[in-house]
Amino acid sequence: MARVSVLGASGYAGAIAARLIDRHPFFELAHVTARSEAGARLDDIHPRTRVPMVLETWDPDRQSDVDAALVCWPHRAAAPAVAALRERGVRVVDLSADFRLTDRAIYEDWYGAHGAPEHFGTAVYGLPELYRDAIAGADLVANPGCYPTAALLALAPLARAGLIADVVIDAKSGVSGAGREPTAATHYIAADENMTPYKVERHRHTPEIEQELAGQGASLPVTFTPHLVPLAQGELVSCYVTPAREHDEEELMTLFDAAYAREPWVELRLGPPGVLEVRETNFCRLSVHSDGRTGRIMVFSSIDNLWKGAASQAVQNLDLMFGRDEREGLT
Amino acid sequence: MARVSVLGASGYAGAIAARLIDRHPFFELAHVTARSEAGARLDDIHPRTRVPMVLETWDPDRQSDVDAALVCWPHRAAAPAVAALRERGVRVVDLSADFRLTDRAIYEDWYGAHGAPEHFGTAVYGLPELYRDAIAGADLVANPGCYPTAALLALAPLARAGLIADVVIDAKSGVSGAGREPTAATHYIAADENMTPYKVERHRHTPEIEQELAGQGASLPVTFTPHLVPLAQGELVSCYVTPAREHDEEELMTLFDAAYAREPWVELRLGPPGVLEVRETNFCRLSVHSDGRTGRIMVFSSIDNLWKGAASQAVQNLDLMFGRDEREGLT
Amino acid sequence: MARVSVLGASGYAGAIAARLIDRHPFFELAHVTARSEAGARLDDIHPRTRVPMVLETWDPDRQSDVDAALVCWPHRAAAPAVAALRERGVRVVDLSADFRLTDRAIYEDWYGAHGAPEHFGTAVYGLPELYRDAIAGADLVANPGCYPTAALLALAPLARAGLIADVVIDAKSGVSGAGREPTAATHYIAADENMTPYKVERHRHTPEIEQELAGQGASLPVTFTPHLVPLAQGELVSCYVTPAREHDEEELMTLFDAAYAREPWVELRLGPPGVLEVRETNFCRLSVHSDGRTGRIMVFSSIDNLWKGAASQAVQNLDLMFGRDEREGLT
Amino acid sequence: MARVSVLGASGYAGAIAARLIDRHPFFELAHVTARSEAGARLDDIHPRTRVPMVLETWDPDRQSDVDAALVCWPHRAAAPAVAALRERGVRVVDLSADFRLTDRAIYEDWYGAHGAPEHFGTAVYGLPELYRDAIAGADLVANPGCYPTAALLALAPLARAGLIADVVIDAKSGVSGAGREPTAATHYIAADENMTPYKVERHRHTPEIEQELAGQGASLPVTFTPHLVPLAQGELVSCYVTPAREHDEEELMTLFDAAYAREPWVELRLGPPGVLEVRETNFCRLSVHSDGRTGRIMVFSSIDNLWKGAASQAVQNLDLMFGRDEREGLT
Repeated sequence: MARVSVLGASGYAGAIAARLIDRHPFFELAHVTARSEAGARLDDIHPRTRVPMVLETWDPDRQSDVDAALVCWPHRAAAPAVAALRERGVRVVDLSADFRLTDRAIYEDWYGAHGAPEHFGTAVYGLPELYRDAIAGADLVANPGCYPTAALLALAPLARAGLIADVVIDAKSGVSGAGREPTAATHYIAADENMTPYKVERHRHTPEIEQELAGQGASLPVTFTPHLVPLAQGELVSCYVTPAREHDEEELMTLFDAAYAREPWVELRLGPPGVLEVRETNFCRLSVHSDGRTGRIMVFSSIDNLWKGAASQAVQNLDLMFGRDEREGLT
Repeated sequence: MARVSVLGASGYAGAIAARLIDRHPFFELAHVTARSEAGARLDDIHPRTRVPMVLETWDPDRQSDVDAALVCWPHRAAAPAVAALRERGVRVVDLSADFRLTDRAIYEDWYGAHGAPEHFGTAVYGLPELYRDAIAGADLVANPGCYPTAALLALAPLARAGLIADVVIDAKSGVSGAGREPTAATHYIAADENMTPYKVERHRHTPEIEQELAGQGASLPVTFTPHLVPLAQGELVSCYVTPAREHDEEELMTLFDAAYAREPWVELRLGPPGVLEVRETNFCRLSVHSDGRTGRIMVFSSIDNLWKGAASQAVQNLDLMFGRDEREGLT
Repeated sequence: MARVSVLGASGYAGAIAARLIDRHPFFELAHVTARSEAGARLDDIHPRTRVPMVLETWDPDRQSDVDAALVCWPHRAAAPAVAALRERGVRVVDLSADFRLTDRAIYEDWYGAHGAPEHFGTAVYGLPELYRDAIAGADLVANPGCYPTAALLALAPLARAGLIADVVIDAKSGVSGAGREPTAATHYIAADENMTPYKVERHRHTPEIEQELAGQGASLPVTFTPHLVPLAQGELVSCYVTPAREHDEEELMTLFDAAYAREPWVELRLGPPGVLEVRETNFCRLSVHSDGRTGRIMVFSSIDNLWKGAASQAVQNLDLMFGRDEREGLT
Repeated sequence: MARVSVLGASGYAGAIAARLIDRHPFFELAHVTARSEAGARLDDIHPRTRVPMVLETWDPDRQSDVDAALVCWPHRAAAPAVAALRERGVRVVDLSADFRLTDRAIYEDWYGAHGAPEHFGTAVYGLPELYRDAIAGADLVANPGCYPTAALLALAPLARAGLIADVVIDAKSGVSGAGREPTAATHYIAADENMTPYKVERHRHTPEIEQELAGQGASLPVTFTPHLVPLAQGELVSCYVTPAREHDEEELMTLFDAAYAREPWVELRLGPPGVLEVRETNFCRLSVHSDGRTGRIMVFSSIDNLWKGAASQAVQNLDLMFGRDEREGLT
């Protein structure tokens, strides 16, 4: 039994993380925190959690009676909290972007000054399908962004096989990806019956994808464009790869089978996946295609942006960090 | 005043076409036809038309007392009807794919045997922004497919400027694009909160896009993947162009301004367009971007798949064929 | 030709009103105003209007070079603006609730202090199907609330015939009824795939419905409960009437035919109406049913809450005030 | 451990029932059957189940090696299957309407001839909150309809207290209630952005509600009108009760607390419930209100029509029949 805090449990990902920990056979939910909504009960704000705990104001001293914490705060706010937790010996999965990048100049270029520079570069990137062993021994795991999760699972086998000369990543996400803050863009009337590209050329998940693709052997600038679509949860990433060399469909199938056939949370499919198939699960569904007409390789990858793209992947990482089966608490 | 029939008025595009003709200051709606629903009133099947006419079984002899016809039938069924209409001196806008392609081998490869081979290759491709003058003198216009309409408006200026070395077209469409037939894919429960690629590598709009891009100077195989998204009407086409030569943002702006600044139905925007902005209009909204990091050119194009992608573009073509202002009946 | 201002054109109803006036053959759109968004162009905020006018800060002196104004401001803010306009001889349709009620104590009970008490009680209630002649001679028309519009058209024939002993009004509205302000309730994630009653026992349209039912001969407290449903525009009002006396289906049909057969904007149907059928129109669709098992009378009424429930009904009223056909500018 | 078959697992409710049994700690999923889709794998048709079993053609002899069966077939088809199962000693929860009614004339009036008249009237009505003890001893349980489930939980405390003189039940359901068959009504384009009453005066859940209300002490004809709303799963029932006698808010609260405070699957709330709060759960959420202005009692009740309204309630019943905790397999 290990005790776990969830910081930022009033957000969408935080609330799901709290629900998953609350029902987990090994972890015990010790604290849930919120900033503006401290004092309220979590199940009043997020009824589906059915977690009747009161949200606390975060206090590293009062809430360090735990073995681990899931930090569901925005980037830049997360870093100092992560630092404070580590100083108290608490193992952390950070869902923000603060510890994902390894090059500080790139971090500062895309996010601004870092809030805990002494800890920069000390985290393991929390994509279990790539870094399982390192995660198991880590005390700080940087949970990947939702788009990088889907894109990297799609592209890693190709990167490792030296197949990527160039890549276009066209991504589509439901509205929960924009967060719980009511804004003009998240108003029902703006999103319903609409879809639109956003943050063209400047979405912050771009350098994260490039860093991790490089780590798999494909160092190149990627074209990444997210789109907002009218649904609540779900993310579909369509990857168009210009191959670096000759290949055939069979080689692709072999590569993906080798990479994922034994992965508990990756489902390979012959036809392209839909997002509803993975809704409210930790699964990533993938299909890979070789287009005979153009020679291009296409990979389609679907996840639930709040689950495998955030909260449930954080629990998968926590399972690994505590030596548990990475399916525990997620099925 | 010219009299117009709408064949296939019980389908989504046909119903809108009938409504537009019914309210048009110059055209008069003479007949509306349907196959299985003949005998019913159009406004009982499609209340929003508020066209109280009875749907007739198609009969070329009884319904040739017209000057023009909009044929809203499926491909292969349309061709013989178009032939029968032309033989009776009726000018036709055909919304099917039967007369869009100019290479019969390619047609047969993607669609099967042609239903009126003696007329094959005799139509003008009905994209007014490219072929306005030819449309004005035509008696058979092949109304473009919805995806080609959005993609070609996005890519034609680049093709003419010799800028396209390679292109990925990632397209997203609302469910009306799948037609009015109730199927597993169009069931509310299958489409709601879902999105998925479909017809990967084999959507029939691919050769149509390639033919017309070649006509603008860019002969190359294109990668085109459509996706189904949970909304009724609207289509967004995201084009990722690998440039064939050096260029800068200013050149792109100049190209698009030259192409579209005076076009009544194309709206250039600095930021990426949404589909709601063009819903139930004949507008195409475009934005063009030069990605400094990757050198790629991106063009985003949004239309209403049933309007500019079908019915209202057909009326725009009809306006041109009869010497009318191409905004007439569409504002 | 008459010149018209639209105050509050940045809201949903105001934007539609501006679009309708802009395309109206008789009226000319002279000014559009907004508070926080003054200086922006209307078509940047509401692209679908395609009205390229700049939103002005409201100034009664500078903007009184008009014949009429549509006031699309919230209740309590509207009253002083209406007063200022009338003092300058401008005819007004007020879309707020400030001049709908005739009993000031009831107004103050539900809304608080009135912002222009000297004008209280001087307006004509702008439901043309009930007060057409008075509207034609009015210089201040209080445009009805969306729910009262649908409910009164459903119930007026029964009220006049002395048939209403008791009534339950269960109303359902799309999210646009909650206004353009981003709030927790209008967030896509809160509204999507959800529905819920709101303002139970205390929605402000209750006294308005009661006042007008009394005017038609049925003085009684009504039970009125609105529900929020996941769609953008559309309102369905289900009325359950305990009859005050014997009746049969034929009498009901006769009553409704007598009331509405010649009304240009009311459509009687045998089966219950859907809201999509009246979307973006000034129509109200009605069906009336006599339940043989329970003796109850049921009337179902559907409108577009932003059109017949607000903006287009305001234009219908303006047409009448200026001696125009009440279909002008609305078809 | 008990072995369970799910008949009709290719439908929406059947698929959920199969998933719940498959993950249940006490029950083992022995067979899943389908008619037209036999031979396919359940997780190919319903990916979210992640039940990789092959759908079998139903065969009472080959599939009677089980302790219990959930019959998810349409009414009239279900009855003979239920009879065959009982003859082989299999305990049954029947999700159809075939064994809910106790008056055969009423059954035949609303449904037609019964398919197994010798078993008519031998089932226990499977609403655990009303009939827990009888269910525990039953070998045939008639699982309630979705609307009756929500309506009876809302009204039973009032019926038992002699408070119901008259009642209007206005119900709203998501599209999954219409079943998996693709029809004109379930087409995305028909349902999206729409809502409409349906089966006015003639929905088959009416006699079921009346029978069970009578069983609780309120014998009266009810007015029941369902509406279709644009969401996948979720049902909201708004009950408007004309009280038979004096009462106050406190009495209502006491009645509902006494009825439900200890119920594991009923949640009492002060404010009206939404359907999203109970999505994919076995919960029913209720609020009760006494309208001071009109004297009316209002009860709002929300469930997931496929869960508490069908599949999960069937599992709750099965738990009780086998002496298990009725939360087992449902949390």
